[in-house]
Amino acid sequence: MDDLARRLREFADARDWEQYHTPKNLVMALSGEVGELTALFQWLTPEESATALEDPELRPEVLDELADVAIYLVRLADVLGVDLMDAARAKIARNESRFPPGSAGQIY
Amino acid sequence: MDDLARRLREFADARDWEQYHTPKNLVMALSGEVGELTALFQWLTPEESATALEDPELRPEVLDELADVAIYLVRLADVLGVDLMDAARAKIARNESRFPPGSAGQIY
Amino acid sequence: MDDLARRLREFADARDWEQYHTPKNLVMALSGEVGELTALFQWLTPEESATALEDPELRPEVLDELADVAIYLVRLADVLGVDLMDAARAKIARNESRFPPGSAGQIY
Amino acid sequence: MDDLARRLREFADARDWEQYHTPKNLVMALSGEVGELTALFQWLTPEESATALEDPELRPEVLDELADVAIYLVRLADVLGVDLMDAARAKIARNESRFPPGSAGQIY
Repeated sequence: MDDLARRLREFADARDWEQYHTPKNLVMALSGEVGELTALFQWLTPEESATALEDPELRPEVLDELADVAIYLVRLADVLGVDLMDAARAKIARNESRFPPGSAGQIY
Repeated sequence: MDDLARRLREFADARDWEQYHTPKNLVMALSGEVGELTALFQWLTPEESATALEDPELRPEVLDELADVAIYLVRLADVLGVDLMDAARAKIARNESRFPPGSAGQIY
Repeated sequence: MDDLARRLREFADARDWEQYHTPKNLVMALSGEVGELTALFQWLTPEESATALEDPELRPEVLDELADVAIYLVRLADVLGVDLMDAARAKIARNESRFPPGSAGQIY
Repeated sequence: MDDLARRLREFADARDWEQYHTPKNLVMALSGEVGELTALFQWLTPEESATALEDPELRPEVLDELADVAIYLVRLADVLGVDLMDAARAKIARNESRFPPGSAGQIY
């Protein structure tokens, strides 16, 4: 992931796009890509969504949108100076104590 | 990241939440978290957004939402059986040839 | 709807919030509210979603988020000088000719 | 707006699309369209966003996405049996008492 962040930094730098890559703009770009991913799943039943990648037409589109979401998320974290995996691990640890296994059962 | 995916799988399994974690539902959860991240940046100027993490009140909120977005993205990719970093690298390679450095200059 | 737009304009003006209400910021605010609406539906099955308003706990939350989405959409259109109902009617007319009834059957 | 809701109901009915129009799916469709709208504004400065409709290329795209957002919002409210304008007016009334003019000044 560090490698990916570095490659995205070089990509932006080589095209003089760093001026556009403010956190505010990158949050919007991330949100736009999640919107495209959402559109691919909107009319599928939950069951159909589970096998979406077996559909030869849908598969490359889903991979493409997942990649775009990952790219903007990694880029946003890099611009903000955040270690994304650290932040995720800290959050999971909090969730593990907030939602002990075998408790309520209701998903939050 | 593989480690994170495994931990999230165990987390869902221990709470009997795997039934809820269809790709369709996880796309919605991802989208909801991106919405919360967006709300933190909505009234900031682009300049203010660049130093958002220096604000002691905003910092933990941004880290928390970035973590939630990363968590649902990794979980979604795992449920779909997608290698997220592979997909991202393949997409960057395509972007590098679609947008040669020094070309148009207009961000896409 | 014109009445709603006017009331939102006065509301923003009375609080000196018009400076924040650029189209860019309002698009983010709209997106954040849609994220909150999405979170209310994310773990529901499609069938459960159809009766969401019969749940006494969920009902006021859904109404509240729908209202927030409508508010930011009307405010955004007003700031941009767009007649939202006109735009919607023009789009439906285009959709009616793009998707003749009884054609393919596949939802787009 | 009632007229728009009715026309969308007939549109869905004539194409046998009502089966797809569960609240869950329509929330996703709304979210996808807001994502497309967001993408149009992501690289604009707040100042540029204020004059986006003067750009002859951007103008029809923004109108198109605003229309799609309005369409899915009206359709969603209709399927849920919600009077959107009533809900919005009730929310504004609450906001007017939560945020008295001349108070804090910080936008919420």
